Amino acid sequence: MHNYKYIAMIPARLGSKRIPKKNIRYLLDKPLIQYPIELALSSNRFSGIWVNTESQELGQAAMKLGAQFHRRPASLATDTATNRDFTYEFLQNHPCDYVIMLNTTSPLLRQDTMNRFLDYIDENQFDTVLSVIAEKEETFFQGRPLNFSLTEKVNSQLLEPTEAVVWAMTAWKRASFMEMQEAGINPVFGGRLGRFAIPKDEACDLDTEEDWNIAEGIMTARQQHSERRYMEL
Amino acid sequence: MHNYKYIAMIPARLGSKRIPKKNIRYLLDKPLIQYPIELALSSNRFSGIWVNTESQELGQAAMKLGAQFHRRPASLATDTATNRDFTYEFLQNHPCDYVIMLNTTSPLLRQDTMNRFLDYIDENQFDTVLSVIAEKEETFFQGRPLNFSLTEKVNSQLLEPTEAVVWAMTAWKRASFMEMQEAGINPVFGGRLGRFAIPKDEACDLDTEEDWNIAEGIMTARQQHSERRYMEL
Repeated sequence: MHNYKYIAMIPARLGSKRIPKKNIRYLLDKPLIQYPIELALSSNRFSGIWVNTESQELGQAAMKLGAQFHRRPASLATDTATNRDFTYEFLQNHPCDYVIMLNTTSPLLRQDTMNRFLDYIDENQFDTVLSVIAEKEETFFQGRPLNFSLTEKVNSQLLEPTEAVVWAMTAWKRASFMEMQEAGINPVFGGRLGRFAIPKDEACDLDTEEDWNIAEGIMTARQQHSERRYMEL
Repeated sequence: MHNYKYIAMIPARLGSKRIPKKNIRYLLDKPLIQYPIELALSSNRFSGIWVNTESQELGQAAMKLGAQFHRRPASLATDTATNRDFTYEFLQNHPCDYVIMLNTTSPLLRQDTMNRFLDYIDENQFDTVLSVIAEKEETFFQGRPLNFSLTEKVNSQLLEPTEAVVWAMTAWKRASFMEMQEAGINPVFGGRLGRFAIPKDEACDLDTEEDWNIAEGIMTARQQHSERRYMEL
């Protein structure tokens, strides 16, 4: 068990593309930016909780919600700027053992899952930790069966899972990330790599309007657990 | 364009295991069994819509909802009975070109998607057609990157998708299925195989209580499209 120093970084451009201004758009009763800020605040594991944005207005709104404001250069907030570049610029300014990138587009993430993610990092020595969804389903890749055989049907519980990266939470060891970036190596999947499986209903990534509806639906369903009712036969 | 004769088969045991009696449990305002029956009825493409169950009571309830009742032998309704066996027994009794298996556990399937699935079959000469979810996400399999490289990060739109089989709808050509089964060959993925991608929000498979919450949530969100509201900056 290490006692790493963690800081949270919440990237939040004001000029998002597919869903315009999504970071300030309400998802049910809160703007999207508020979800990861409250999640990080509700934990006592972070030495700092920073919203990384090019926008003075969004930065000030984030401060009202309890976060700190890291103003990213406008050149790192274009559609072509990569997360390795803005993360590197952020890490130059904020010492820590690990930075935990929390995305506003994953508002369904639970406190308990985030704490288990941090425990997993504490218990290991990773350079990068990704959050993934593990799925045990018959899967094709390039038109061919990946984890099953066409000649037999087995219980899906026995299938080897695929693990899809979901970007809800990503951890990078600061020293390794900076070293790789400075050496011209891509640090995003760099070094000793950990994969942490999160529950499927916490993974919704808000890429499209359809995703927005799904997320609102899941969140509503969590709040109003319905009783079990059955048809009479 | 063929004009195949389609019949719908809705398998529905009363004694489900993971979620007890799920087929008669209410999902919002309707029992689960009602969703595929109404979906099939609302189309004019089926020569018959059959609920395939071992239960006299469930069969009669299905008839009240507008379906026909195929009573499956009790020996084909145990936990170890396979869908190839009960589908074969069903096909022995019901002539058609294709049987379309609609699962009660996919209540989010839309009419339009089902019709496009039938069009896809009409336009081809498949023995088996599976419904799949295509996902463009960085995916690991057996601990190794499947469709991406650790040394570069590309836009996820450029990734080759994985396609996971979801069992929302499955089509089998009756003649081929019966021939394979009688020859001792597994017909479930047999012969000329088609894969039909359905939208992600229609794919929820009700395996667990968590899935149940997600499905209720998505369905609620579909009914009450929320207006877009933004935080003031």
